[in-house]
Amino acid sequence: MQKAGILGGGQLGKMLLQAAANYPVETYVMEKSADCPSAHLCNHFVLGDINDYDQVYNFGKGLDVVTIEIEHVNVPALKQLAKDGVRVIPHPAILETIQNKITQKDFYIQHQIPTADYIVTQNKAELSQYLHRLPAVHKLNKGGYDGRGVQILKDEDDLPLAFDEPAVLEKKIAIEREISMLVARNEKGDIAIYPPVEMMMDPYLNQLDYQISPATLPEKVYWKAEAIAIKVVQSFKSAGLFAIELMIDAQQDIWVNETAPRVHNSGHHTIEGNYCSQFDMLWRILLNYPLGNTEPIAPTVMVNLIGAPTFSGNAVYKGLEDVLSLDHCFVHIYGKKETKPGRKMGHITILHADRTELLHVCNKVKHAIQIISE
Amino acid sequence: MQKAGILGGGQLGKMLLQAAANYPVETYVMEKSADCPSAHLCNHFVLGDINDYDQVYNFGKGLDVVTIEIEHVNVPALKQLAKDGVRVIPHPAILETIQNKITQKDFYIQHQIPTADYIVTQNKAELSQYLHRLPAVHKLNKGGYDGRGVQILKDEDDLPLAFDEPAVLEKKIAIEREISMLVARNEKGDIAIYPPVEMMMDPYLNQLDYQISPATLPEKVYWKAEAIAIKVVQSFKSAGLFAIELMIDAQQDIWVNETAPRVHNSGHHTIEGNYCSQFDMLWRILLNYPLGNTEPIAPTVMVNLIGAPTFSGNAVYKGLEDVLSLDHCFVHIYGKKETKPGRKMGHITILHADRTELLHVCNKVKHAIQIISE
Repeated sequence: MQKAGILGGGQLGKMLLQAAANYPVETYVMEKSADCPSAHLCNHFVLGDINDYDQVYNFGKGLDVVTIEIEHVNVPALKQLAKDGVRVIPHPAILETIQNKITQKDFYIQHQIPTADYIVTQNKAELSQYLHRLPAVHKLNKGGYDGRGVQILKDEDDLPLAFDEPAVLEKKIAIEREISMLVARNEKGDIAIYPPVEMMMDPYLNQLDYQISPATLPEKVYWKAEAIAIKVVQSFKSAGLFAIELMIDAQQDIWVNETAPRVHNSGHHTIEGNYCSQFDMLWRILLNYPLGNTEPIAPTVMVNLIGAPTFSGNAVYKGLEDVLSLDHCFVHIYGKKETKPGRKMGHITILHADRTELLHVCNKVKHAIQIISE
Repeated sequence: MQKAGILGGGQLGKMLLQAAANYPVETYVMEKSADCPSAHLCNHFVLGDINDYDQVYNFGKGLDVVTIEIEHVNVPALKQLAKDGVRVIPHPAILETIQNKITQKDFYIQHQIPTADYIVTQNKAELSQYLHRLPAVHKLNKGGYDGRGVQILKDEDDLPLAFDEPAVLEKKIAIEREISMLVARNEKGDIAIYPPVEMMMDPYLNQLDYQISPATLPEKVYWKAEAIAIKVVQSFKSAGLFAIELMIDAQQDIWVNETAPRVHNSGHHTIEGNYCSQFDMLWRILLNYPLGNTEPIAPTVMVNLIGAPTFSGNAVYKGLEDVLSLDHCFVHIYGKKETKPGRKMGHITILHADRTELLHVCNKVKHAIQIISE
C-alpha cells in the first residue's frame, strides 16, 4: 500500500481524505492545529509547521508521494525530498514560482501566456510615480490568500491603501466574465480538462456569489480558454491538478489571473457534478492510476458557506435544516470549530439538468442558511 | 456538536464515516480490530467487543446517538443506553427480533407480512420427519451472515448438510426475481423510500452477479413491493434505514426474505446514483435532520469486488488500473488488508442513462479486476 502525505489539513485536505478512502492508500497529514478538518480522517496525523524545513522534510521522508493543499509550504524541504526520491506533486519549483506574485507573473510573460500588464513595486512611496497606471490592482508579492493581499487602487485617493512591501501593480482588466479551468496532468504527461466553471460575482458585495458549471461560453472563447489553460499546465512541466483562473474582457480577450497547483474551491462541484471529482483525480495522479473522466453528470451550481459578518466564535449553522429539506442539494460542512467573518465554513452543490431550476434552488439556499456564532 | 457512535468498523462503517465528514458531528467507532476499514476515519476509535455488555454500554454512555453497521451486537447494553436517554437507532428490540431467524419469521407472521411458509427445527435428526417439505431452505437461527448459515436442502440426500442447531426450515420459493427495497424512517415517523434494486444472480455460481437500480418492475409488482416494504418498516416502529429483501415468484407474489435494519450492500449504488445516499440518509436520521431525496440521478449497476477463490493473504487488486480507465465507473476499495475467498473487498458503481451501456461496462469491469493475494 502506498504512503501519501498531504501538507495542510483544511477543508481541501478533508475532501481529499474522503476521496482517499476509496483507494488502497495510507494517508499522512501535517498541520499545526490538532482540531483541523483533516486531523481525524487520515491514518497518521502529524502536528507540525508546514513552513518549517526540518518538520516538512521529516514528515515526507519515507513516504511514496507528497502533495499540498495550500501553496505556502516549505519548498526547500520538498526539493530535498524530491532529490531523495519521494514523488512530490506538484513539483516544488512550481510552488516557488506561484507562492510569489512577482515570479508568477514573470512566468506567464516568459511563456507567452496572456496576463494583465504589470509592473513590480517595492513600497508604497514608489506608487506616486505610477498614477498614470491607475485604476489598477495591487497584489502583495507574498502571503496573499483567499482574497487577502489584493487591493484595488482606483485613483490617487486610494494610494494610502497600497501595500508598503514588494507587490505587483497590475492593469485593471474590465472583466466581463471570470472562469476557472481545472486541468489534470499525470507523470506520463497525459492531460484531462474539466468543463469551464463560471464565477458569478455579487456586484454590490464584490465577492463570489456562486459558481456554475459547465459555463456556457461562446465556442471560440471556450476553445481559447482551454488552449490557454493547457498552455499554462504544459509550461509548468509537472504532474498535478491545476486550477487556472481566467478573466474575459469585453473584447473576448482572455487573461490569466492566477494558477493554483492543487485542488481548488472552483472545483468543489466536481464531487457530485462530474464522473471523476477533482479530489479523486488528484489521487489518481498521486497513485499513478489512469486519469479519470471529467465529463459532467449534470450542470451544477456551487455556493460557498461563509462565516457571517460580525460573528466570531463557535459555529452555528442557522437554517441548515431548511437547506437539507431542499431537493438536489449536497451539503458539505467542513467542521471548523470557530466561525469568523468571511471564513469558508462549508459549501453546497446543487445538481440539476435545468439551469433555471439550479438558480432557483441556489437562491433558496442563500436565503436559508447563515453561519453565526453561539 | 452531536456525538454519534457506530458499533462495528467494517466497510459499512467506513462509508458512513465518509458521509459523516459532511456534517457537524463527532464520530465514535467500536470494533475489535484496530486495522478495520473505519478505524482511521472517525474522531474516536475504541478497540472493543461489540458483543460485550460492559464495553458496549461504556462506549455508548455520554453519546447523543448510537447506531450499528452489523446486527450482531450486545442488545441488552443498547436497551440500557436507550433507557438512560441515549438515542439508539434502530431501536434495540428490532435487533433482537432480527438477530434470530426464528423471531424474525415470527415477526412477519404476527404482522401479516408475506413470508415463505416455514417451521422451526431444533436439530438435524428432527428433519427426517419433514421430508415432505423438501425442497426447502434451512436457515440457522443465530449467527448467519452474508450467505453463511443458509443451506438449500433439495431432497433426502441433502439432509447431512442440515444444521444441527435451532433453525428455520423454509419452503423454497421458485424465485423469478430478487429485489431490495431501502426505506428510511425518522423519529417523527416520516418515510422515504428508494427505487427498488434488482439483484441479478449468477445461475452457475449461485451468487450475486450484479445489482441494477432502479429495477424495471411491472407497475403492479412495484406498488406491491413498496407497500410490503413500508409495512415492514412501520411494523418495526423505529427510526432507521432498512433494507428489505424481497423474492418475487412466477405468480408475481412477493415474499419477504429478510430485513437488515441498517445501511446495506444493496444500497451502495445510492452513493453516486441518488441525490441522497443511504449513508447520508442515515446521518440525517441520526442527527434529526429532514430526510433526503431518494430520487435517482441516473440508473446504476453495482458490482461487488469479492476475494477470488483460493487466494488468502495481503490483498492485491489485479487489474484495478484497467477499471480506473473505464468511463462512468466509481471505484470503492474498502482497504481490508487481507483477502479471503468470497470476502467483500470493495465495489464498483457504474452510472449511465443507457441501461445497455451499463451492462456493457459491468461486463468489462468483471473481466478486468481480480482480488488475489501477494
